Amino acid sequence: MDNQKIKRSDDYSGWYNNLVKNADLAEHSAVKGCMVIKPYGYAIWEKMQQELDRRFKDTGHVNAYFPLFIPKSFFTKEASHVEGFATECAVVTHYRLKNVNGEMVVDPDAKLEEELIVRPTSETIIWNTYKGWIQSYRDLPLLINQWANVVRWEMRTRLFLRTTEFLWQEGHTAHATEAEAVEETRKMLEVYADFAENILAVPVIKGVKTETERFAGALDTYCIEGLMQDGKALQMGTSHFLGQNFAKAFDVKFVSKENKQEFVWATSWGVSTRLMGALIMAHSDDEGLVLPPRLAPIQVVIVPIYRSDEEQTKVLEAGDKIFAALKAKGISVKFDSRDTHKPGFKFAEWELKGVPVRIAIGPRDLENQTVELARRDTKEKQLVSITDLENKVEHLLEQIQQNIYQKALDFRTEKTYIADNWDDFVKKVELGFVYAHWDGTAETEKKIKEQTKATIRCIPLHNEQQAGKCILTGNPSTQRVLFAKAY
Amino acid sequence: MDNQKIKRSDDYSGWYNNLVKNADLAEHSAVKGCMVIKPYGYAIWEKMQQELDRRFKDTGHVNAYFPLFIPKSFFTKEASHVEGFATECAVVTHYRLKNVNGEMVVDPDAKLEEELIVRPTSETIIWNTYKGWIQSYRDLPLLINQWANVVRWEMRTRLFLRTTEFLWQEGHTAHATEAEAVEETRKMLEVYADFAENILAVPVIKGVKTETERFAGALDTYCIEGLMQDGKALQMGTSHFLGQNFAKAFDVKFVSKENKQEFVWATSWGVSTRLMGALIMAHSDDEGLVLPPRLAPIQVVIVPIYRSDEEQTKVLEAGDKIFAALKAKGISVKFDSRDTHKPGFKFAEWELKGVPVRIAIGPRDLENQTVELARRDTKEKQLVSITDLENKVEHLLEQIQQNIYQKALDFRTEKTYIADNWDDFVKKVELGFVYAHWDGTAETEKKIKEQTKATIRCIPLHNEQQAGKCILTGNPSTQRVLFAKAY
Repeated sequence: MDNQKIKRSDDYSGWYNNLVKNADLAEHSAVKGCMVIKPYGYAIWEKMQQELDRRFKDTGHVNAYFPLFIPKSFFTKEASHVEGFATECAVVTHYRLKNVNGEMVVDPDAKLEEELIVRPTSETIIWNTYKGWIQSYRDLPLLINQWANVVRWEMRTRLFLRTTEFLWQEGHTAHATEAEAVEETRKMLEVYADFAENILAVPVIKGVKTETERFAGALDTYCIEGLMQDGKALQMGTSHFLGQNFAKAFDVKFVSKENKQEFVWATSWGVSTRLMGALIMAHSDDEGLVLPPRLAPIQVVIVPIYRSDEEQTKVLEAGDKIFAALKAKGISVKFDSRDTHKPGFKFAEWELKGVPVRIAIGPRDLENQTVELARRDTKEKQLVSITDLENKVEHLLEQIQQNIYQKALDFRTEKTYIADNWDDFVKKVELGFVYAHWDGTAETEKKIKEQTKATIRCIPLHNEQQAGKCILTGNPSTQRVLFAKAY
Repeated sequence: MDNQKIKRSDDYSGWYNNLVKNADLAEHSAVKGCMVIKPYGYAIWEKMQQELDRRFKDTGHVNAYFPLFIPKSFFTKEASHVEGFATECAVVTHYRLKNVNGEMVVDPDAKLEEELIVRPTSETIIWNTYKGWIQSYRDLPLLINQWANVVRWEMRTRLFLRTTEFLWQEGHTAHATEAEAVEETRKMLEVYADFAENILAVPVIKGVKTETERFAGALDTYCIEGLMQDGKALQMGTSHFLGQNFAKAFDVKFVSKENKQEFVWATSWGVSTRLMGALIMAHSDDEGLVLPPRLAPIQVVIVPIYRSDEEQTKVLEAGDKIFAALKAKGISVKFDSRDTHKPGFKFAEWELKGVPVRIAIGPRDLENQTVELARRDTKEKQLVSITDLENKVEHLLEQIQQNIYQKALDFRTEKTYIADNWDDFVKKVELGFVYAHWDGTAETEKKIKEQTKATIRCIPLHNEQQAGKCILTGNPSTQRVLFAKAY
């Protein structure tokens, strides 16, 4: 463990990097821009995957797998799509190495006729495949998701938030009508919002991106935006209405009920390991990670306290019983009975790793039939009777989940502002979310970004449509939009 | 559905390709050598993953994720390893496209200083990472698994069996002693054998590869070998004892309990989507896929039979009840109540997809309080009373799982031979597994392969060590080894 402690209030970015490293979540790899997700970090990601996957299946989706590589000629078929991704593509050009005088070099004789792009997203290869799967309205809707790695070449990377390779899921659906595709786009946005709020415990604003911020190839990009503890926004998931763009690029038509040839309507939607960054930045503190119980690989840790051998025997015996009772209740529990470390060290380690509940048990507890329960989120401790402990702990975990969410919600409420003039806007956008009027032009959006580094996070779905004047140009505006500086 | 039916006995290879396609398991993609795993195929793979993942975790392993790309200079550090994989490496050389006169081309200014290899396996990048994780004996053992995609450039591909990109898991463990690493290698072989026999229902021979067939960089490669219905062997999983090769190549040392600097001992082990090929080839028949219930995404399908609207209402109502009862029992059941297709069509479709049990229910059944149960494996049908149906079905699924295994075992017993002279060997090796004496030299192994296309599948772990004479050279041999033609 690197004990160089950096306080969140002193250096947010340094604090984040340290936490990711010290809590054993991830590290930079020797491959520029790519990360290694360490076992503890990966266990949290697996819990996210399970929760998301269940929600996708409950809404009628199935999983499949499409190739990692995309032939360059497919990739370039949808014009705005390729423009959006061209500058960040990893390109495979050869398929063999060769030993030349004892050195392994790329074999010039094994050059590909057509270069392959390592997928930055899979719309093109998937719509090329869907062409073979869709003939009639009876083949629709097609509701498919893929769990995969993708590559987008990044010059400046940060663990989880921006890496050249990342893990994600990408849903790709095909529909007979525009209305159905729009409904799917919004439905999946709701799935993401539900997951963010009820599992990650991060409140989110749902909205639509401006044209500038839209996914390359989409007609509309819906998003959820969370607020981090440094007052910056993080885009936590997007759901795209793709219209018929990809169907036209790949010539995917179907025979409608009315026996007409029509182009198919499309959506795509994704969340990634970036959510790990959201989780960390929304809740953690100077002692380390704070995990919502629903994502914690270890929900409860039991730490025994003893001095003598005799005490040790008794305390371990009592700990075993508690461990078994909690486990039987379906709680994910660890009994840290290592005799190589002192209780204080263990307390600090599990705090750093964000375990929601700690149970300490010592000789005096045995006498009194109590244990000490400590909450990671509030750091409160209480002595409780061991009678019915498993139900008390279960209840406490639920309380912690709610409290972490409530705390994040209160923080966001506090850091959400309305600005009606430029000076006020410039001041407040340094602090958090700002609702302000915008004249609807890309030009104004760009100027605001240049002057403040703030972007329009979204045009919120649930906001009073109150007319006003653009904070920069004074031109008329139909509703306030959400601004923030963002990751 | 492509109705061009090919009989297994006429053209095994054509039958396999047709089945993979018609049962909606996978298809070739537009990217040479890469496959698309379709939803039904992927659902089976997900079940395999769950079963394997649980077994890995039960034996103390955790999951993590390492980069897709490996810098060429790492990749070449372990000499025999790179020799083994050099001719099948996809190489990334550039990281950007650029618009030149309206055409997207690879940007020559975005050439990588060092080429990146798309991982064909991850020993090199992982051992480069482990160097930072291992200092002392207290950091050992390190028991890590990764679920990932890998790429090995293939000129001749077959769906699931040999594809350029495939999905797999790769375990990479680090140990303080040679004995512990060997134990791990063998333990994971047992895990694979248990999975193959109890879940895939394919009996396997456990053994050690000859030097010729060993994994590039290993000291010993253990394997499990299954026999397919055409008498060819399929390697279904491998577990490698890597000695200190990778530790030395990446300078990974630890301080032992005796306070000495020592190199770490390693294993790696993997199974892949190739197991889908084994599953298909071991059990399926001319009607399509035959799935062991433990891997079937749909274990039971209910097909209603009716003529009039009145019958329809009653039969669907009864079907709903059966559906609910089976589901409550934890059985994965589908009620195929589509009114767009006739029962006969549905019967054929679910047979093709290998659903283990079919329940047909018609008006006469309602009168008699019965249903018709049909088994996919034996094609037997029986009328049974609906009383306690869920328990009967559960029991039947268990019987089917056992029967599919027993059938494969009987087939293997029948197709396993002993050959003590060359002529006999040449004849029998066309039919199945052949145990025969071999003089232990790579030269003889090569000659046998050249003359018969048969390879030594393994030196079996559980075989009488009976001395004899090599079938080709007549030189002395200490035990029979397992020969077969193989995929």
